[in-house]
Amino acid sequence: MSLSDQLALKAERASAIVDEYLKMGIDDVGFAESLAEAMGYAVEGKGKRIRPVILLEVYRLFMGDGCDLTPAEPFAAALEMIHSYSLVHDDLPAMDNDRLRRGKPSVWVEFSESTAILAGDALLNLAFETAARAFDECEEQDMKKTAQAFSYLAKKAGIHGMIGGQAADVESEKEEIPIDRERLLFIHRNKTGALLQAAFVCGGILGGANAEQINALETIAEHMGVAFQIQDDILDVVGNARKLGKPIGSDAQQGKETYVTLYGLEAAKAEAARLCDESKVVARCLPGDKSFLLALFDFLVDRDY
Amino acid sequence: MSLSDQLALKAERASAIVDEYLKMGIDDVGFAESLAEAMGYAVEGKGKRIRPVILLEVYRLFMGDGCDLTPAEPFAAALEMIHSYSLVHDDLPAMDNDRLRRGKPSVWVEFSESTAILAGDALLNLAFETAARAFDECEEQDMKKTAQAFSYLAKKAGIHGMIGGQAADVESEKEEIPIDRERLLFIHRNKTGALLQAAFVCGGILGGANAEQINALETIAEHMGVAFQIQDDILDVVGNARKLGKPIGSDAQQGKETYVTLYGLEAAKAEAARLCDESKVVARCLPGDKSFLLALFDFLVDRDY
Repeated sequence: MSLSDQLALKAERASAIVDEYLKMGIDDVGFAESLAEAMGYAVEGKGKRIRPVILLEVYRLFMGDGCDLTPAEPFAAALEMIHSYSLVHDDLPAMDNDRLRRGKPSVWVEFSESTAILAGDALLNLAFETAARAFDECEEQDMKKTAQAFSYLAKKAGIHGMIGGQAADVESEKEEIPIDRERLLFIHRNKTGALLQAAFVCGGILGGANAEQINALETIAEHMGVAFQIQDDILDVVGNARKLGKPIGSDAQQGKETYVTLYGLEAAKAEAARLCDESKVVARCLPGDKSFLLALFDFLVDRDY
Repeated sequence: MSLSDQLALKAERASAIVDEYLKMGIDDVGFAESLAEAMGYAVEGKGKRIRPVILLEVYRLFMGDGCDLTPAEPFAAALEMIHSYSLVHDDLPAMDNDRLRRGKPSVWVEFSESTAILAGDALLNLAFETAARAFDECEEQDMKKTAQAFSYLAKKAGIHGMIGGQAADVESEKEEIPIDRERLLFIHRNKTGALLQAAFVCGGILGGANAEQINALETIAEHMGVAFQIQDDILDVVGNARKLGKPIGSDAQQGKETYVTLYGLEAAKAEAARLCDESKVVARCLPGDKSFLLALFDFLVDRDY
């Protein structure tokens, strides 16, 4: 099976898991029905489900092919919910003021600003409610591991991770603070990188990775997070608007500093390729059949959407 | 010691706990420094800390006077962070558009709308990150109890609790949906009631309450949640603007349906008193010295701020 077929299959399975936990989480909500609808709208659609796919894949590496994925599934779903809520809030008029997302009207356009704010809050909340279901799914002896993965996820989603990166990014734009290399790396590492890091590392923690392997996963995640963001920036310049589901060149129009504007297209491509190669070397200490994971690294820096 | 002195003392202790966990949570945040500042601004101040006080008090009832409060502290801090983030988002222009909170400019006025959105997100995230610290604080045999309290907190903070009530409230205002008794109760039970419920019940779960006692705590919390909100509505009509830190009559000005507009001042007062009396009866099945808790019930429906 080709990588893109494998990826599509795994993304479909991850989607089913996310949908299942989402459905459980927005069942029987009384007068909050339109909020539930907005939450569903925010999560459904053509997302790549890259974070849940990575988490489940890393878990599988450690637990072996054909293992029971149940203990990792709540975390996989939680990651996608966190990613989705962050997009809902990012699109708000007071933030990036984006009217389109994944080829559809943003949540605030389709519903309302207040619904988008609350739907984002509710998705973030549901993410942790969902991840906490892992405590019901796991054996007594795995509680500590689950708690460790939970704390890691929470840290990487918050001010020491995604939200921190987002805040530094928004501040640079609104206050017109010039972005130097240090700030750009901080933004990349956190805004995009932190959730990818949570995907790699939580998969490893839940699968019983040792300290050396956790370190390797953190390095890979950090590298691939930056590479992924570089590719995002590149796609904003050269990408395909239909596939991306958003207008091309929107970063440049907004005068946004990116890897491409800072270093040029070729140097940005070379840096992404370097980070990808280094990740492959570091991945050698991970167990199991890594062929899909290594191919995924290439996909992350070669993708055209 | 008078009740208000006791309450002030306990609120001060709760504040110290909240501050400690907040400080831990916004330490060393790199370029996200202004976000951290906004989070601190949102949590600090003259809040009554009623939710952490209740949680710690219920925990103490079950564990005995002079017990070690450490295992319950992360939950107490998390509750206050959730309460604080909800106020930050409620005040936003797209929501209640309030410029004042606890006598100070709202977060979006003092900082910016985008910072207020992100600070709210980051506080909600930090709440769960903080609550998860309870897994580090607790003994191996208490992991399941901690997980149970965690799930309860997450549920009550989300679409099946506070956010659900808030969504139903905002929808009624924006869509001009008339508020009948059923919807008003739904809003009260969830918007204000759910976090109080989490305070009572999580305190009980962590303290090892049995099923009958958990039921009692849920009933008390539901009653006191509605009574608390009724008193809020009453204060909006007859209260003291300086003590409240917000203008009087703001609900009525906004054409907002409340217990008072729906039933009249006297009937609203009578209902609050009835709920308070019933809670005292139900509280009989709880262990320990309940004098402070019972006095607290009276305070919640008699308070003038």
